[in-house]
Order: sequence, then C-alpha cells, then structure tokens
Amino acid sequence: MNPQTPAQYAVAVIGLGSMGFGAAVSCIRAGLTTYGVDINPHALERLRQEGAEQADSRIDHFAAQLDAVVLLVVNAAQVNSILFGEANVAAQLKPGTAVMVSSTISAQDAKRIAERLAEHQLLMLDAPVSGGALKAAAGDMTVMASGSHEAFEKLEPVLNAVAGKVYRIGEEIGLGATVKIIHQLLAGVHIAAGAEAMALAARAGIPLSVMYDVVTHAAGNSWMFENRMKHVVEGDYTPKSAVDIFVKDLGLVTDTAKSLHFPLPLASTAFNMFTAASNAGFGKEDDSAVIKIFSGIELPQQGLPQQREDA
Amino acid sequence: MNPQTPAQYAVAVIGLGSMGFGAAVSCIRAGLTTYGVDINPHALERLRQEGAEQADSRIDHFAAQLDAVVLLVVNAAQVNSILFGEANVAAQLKPGTAVMVSSTISAQDAKRIAERLAEHQLLMLDAPVSGGALKAAAGDMTVMASGSHEAFEKLEPVLNAVAGKVYRIGEEIGLGATVKIIHQLLAGVHIAAGAEAMALAARAGIPLSVMYDVVTHAAGNSWMFENRMKHVVEGDYTPKSAVDIFVKDLGLVTDTAKSLHFPLPLASTAFNMFTAASNAGFGKEDDSAVIKIFSGIELPQQGLPQQREDA
Repeated sequence: MNPQTPAQYAVAVIGLGSMGFGAAVSCIRAGLTTYGVDINPHALERLRQEGAEQADSRIDHFAAQLDAVVLLVVNAAQVNSILFGEANVAAQLKPGTAVMVSSTISAQDAKRIAERLAEHQLLMLDAPVSGGALKAAAGDMTVMASGSHEAFEKLEPVLNAVAGKVYRIGEEIGLGATVKIIHQLLAGVHIAAGAEAMALAARAGIPLSVMYDVVTHAAGNSWMFENRMKHVVEGDYTPKSAVDIFVKDLGLVTDTAKSLHFPLPLASTAFNMFTAASNAGFGKEDDSAVIKIFSGIELPQQGLPQQREDA
Repeated sequence: MNPQTPAQYAVAVIGLGSMGFGAAVSCIRAGLTTYGVDINPHALERLRQEGAEQADSRIDHFAAQLDAVVLLVVNAAQVNSILFGEANVAAQLKPGTAVMVSSTISAQDAKRIAERLAEHQLLMLDAPVSGGALKAAAGDMTVMASGSHEAFEKLEPVLNAVAGKVYRIGEEIGLGATVKIIHQLLAGVHIAAGAEAMALAARAGIPLSVMYDVVTHAAGNSWMFENRMKHVVEGDYTPKSAVDIFVKDLGLVTDTAKSLHFPLPLASTAFNMFTAASNAGFGKEDDSAVIKIFSGIELPQQGLPQQREDA
C-alpha cells in the first residue's frame, strides 16, 4: 500500500515545537520526503537546514502531495483550527491521506475530529506521544495509538521513523487519547507529590540535596521526582515544561473522569495545586514551580549552595 | 575504638521479620558475632541455621556482651516496650553500647527514646532503613541516619554489614526519622496514585496490562507503580507489604506535618484512601489493594486473563 522507497512517501509535520521538530528531523533521517509547518520562521529555517523538502507557515503548496500529516500542536483547539478553520488543511489533503493526531486531547475531541476527517475521506490515528524533546530528536518517542488497521498501515513509515515503541491500544478512536491522559494523571500527581515532599523537608530542616539523594536511591522515587525535583534543588525554574501545561493536562484528566462519573481524589488535588501555582503567577515557570504554593519555607536559589541546618 | 577482628564485635538484631532477618544474616556474613531476638521460634531456628551465635526470645543471656543492638520492630510502641518495658533491655546493656533504632517512627519518638537511652549511658543512632527484603538479605539496605559521631563510629561494623548506602543526615536525633517519613509520603502517594490511575483505566475500558506496559515505559512511571500495580494486573493481593503499614506510615507523615503546622494536600488524601481500604476490610491485603476502594470497575482476577474490550 505504501510506496517502495522512503523518498516516495511524503509527510508534513505541523507544529515544530520541541516534540514536533524532533519528529520532523526523525522523518528526514529516515529518508521520507518531509515538510514542516509552523508560524515560527526560526523553526522553519532550522528545519530547512536539517534537510526538509519545504518548510512554510502554510500547507497549501504541498498539501495535495502528502501521504500523511502529523499534528503536534498544543491542544484540541489548535488541531481543529488547523484542520477545519481558516487554514482548512482537511479540504486540501487528497482522499486517503492519514492524519496522525499526536497532541494531548480528550477522547471526545479525538472522536469528533475523526468524524470530521472522515467526511473528507481522511484516515485518522489517535496517537498521543510521550518521551520529551531528547527522545523526539532521537526518533525514540513512545506512541500510544488507536485507530483502524488501515490508518496504522498507512502511517507505518512515520511510526517507524519517530517512535521507539508503538502501543496499539485498539481500533476505537479515543482509546489512545485516554491512555495518554491517564499517563498524565500519574506524571502530574508525581510532580505535585515531589513538591509536597520537598516542601515538607525544607520546613523540617532537611537539606533538599540530601532528601533528593535519598529518594532517588530508594523506593519512593519516580521518573518525575528525579527529573523535576532536580530543578528545585538547583533553584532553576527555567521552563522545560511549564506549570500551565499541567493545568491543561490535569484539566483533561478531570474532564475524562467527569464524563465517566468517576472520582479522582489525588488527581483533583494535584489539579488544584497546579492551578493555585498558575494563579499565583508561576504559570510560565517550570512545572516544578508548583512547590512555590507552599509558604513559610526557604527554597534553594540558583547559584547559591543551600545552607545545612546542622553538622 | 571498635575491636580488631569482626568476631570480637557482638551485635544483637531484635525483630527478625523480613528486614531484621536480612540484617542479621548480613551481620553473620560479615563475620560479626551475631545474636537474634524474636518471639517467633521459626525465625530463631532459621537464624541459628544461618550461623547466629545465639537466637532467643529474650536478650538476657547475652545483653552484657553486646557492642550494638539493632531494632527492626514494627513501631515506636514496640521499641519502647523492648527497651524500657517488661524486657527492659536498656537496663541490661553495658554503658557505651550503641542502639540503632531502624523502625519507622516519628522524630518526636526518636528524641524521647534517645533521652531515655542516655540515662543508661547508651548511644543511639536514629537510623531508619529502606530497600525491601531482597536488599536486606543482600546487606544492601539504604540507611538514613542521624546521631553523634560516636554513635556512627561505634556502629560502623554493623552499617558496613547491612547497608549498601548510608546517608548521614546530621547529628540531631529525629532527622533520620523525618527523612524516612518524607520518603514514605512519596511511597504512599505513589501507590495510591497508581491505584487511582489503574482504576480510571479500568473504568475507561483500557486493558490494565496495556496501561501498565505504557506507564512503565514512560515518564509517568514510579518505583512503586512498577512494583505494586503488577499485583493489580495479576490480581494477586498476597501481602508483600500490607495496606495497614501505610495507614501507620502515612499517619506518621500527617503527625509530622501537624507538629510543623504544615499542609499536606496529597499525602492527607492518600492517608484517607488507605484508611478507607483498611476500613473496608482490606487492611491485611497487599497495599495495592487500596484500588479496591473504587467501585463500579472490574479488576483482573488471579489466573484469569483480562478480557480486552476491543480488537
């Protein structure tokens, strides 16, 4: 079904943030004819230098030549705007083109998008991703996908290029989105729990570098604790991923639970913690800045070694 | 200060549960003259077979010969009962003997115990441990300790025998206990969060084996998720560590925060979840049974492969 040589397969990546840029570079590296779309001219220029066939703020010039589109924009509103809004990408793609929607969105949004794409005879893969910028750049993302056999088959060259691991959750659109959202539940709770633990340690006079060292060598560790609480220990809140991303993602978690009439004692609390951090003015800081909702403690500051209370 | 050969150093381990038994065997393996104390005759017999000098339900016969005592009993009440109650171990130890208190207890209890030991001219190390039964058996526990230089020095042969890593938190008794309690905050929240996520996945029709596989290969993973949610996927709630242990440990977490007037949005919620599980009759089951507080879902049962909803 797919063409014989990689170069005969044309893919456009829409949204050249850290994940999208990495995915596009992975497609180029795999030999696919790769297009990039973004509103940031700097990202477009960088992608051209990486070997993109074209990189533009609009898809118009190459939409009709594509076998596949990968969407890695921020949210469902952007996905809808690009596909069906002013840019109206869906109307320009040829029938049978596969659209891989890799933004973190709700299952309900994923289903609605699939329906609207079907009106244009377009295939959809509900395919959120995980792994961060480094894994994206290495073509080693984790993809949790649901969709028809046809959609998986059509997107095989792209999945091979961008993913280290592809989970086929099922055929029903929405299952991929749900798995990603439940994953984000854990990621968000783990960051908030790390912040709560480190804040309590600061209040109790435990040097945070010692607390970090103990936890990361014991059963209380999590991927997020190890990655994010390092920023707290170093006092560096330069955003790798911002507080507001988890306001959005934990919002999707609570929406999902609400639609299923299911209680979420911990995730709803973590959602409130990130929302409180955003409300206090830390929304654009690194998500580890959720620790700043705790008052009465002294946190390490960048460049200053933390005072030890004892010894 | 310590004797020249390992065999000239005598240590008694009190409390031969999975952690204590492993610690005692590690002392024997290091060549220390090792005594064991427990009320379980089976554990005593097993320790004799491992090469213990003596193993008894009372410490009386060898108390006066000891350089060190390691306490690995369940809680502060047991520590106090053994040291100062009917058994009155503190009165039988010779002055200068070091007592390593490795149970998970509050900082306040640790301080009171140190004061009472000092009345008998006994040294104390506030030295909770982590790592589980396998690491204990391998002499590879993590010890998070506070105490005087003298106490650390006196216990050096024991620490070398039982620990893979020793954190010296400071000199003040109570700091070791606090670090352990904050570690337990994370461990408990991570188990409860894992249960919440898997329960939501079950409600949403995601096969739990798939959800487990995704999370354990992505940034939402935690040590506890990987270890405990496997029990949920397998439907096996045979207690490795029971729900009631976290009712106790998260109770110590909330006590600690209360004494510091510090809020704990997540840990207080997790405490309620474990308490609800215990109240519903699951206190003696594996701590992963906290997932049973969620109703309206079908969980995998032991020996039965879970039905997939799709594909």
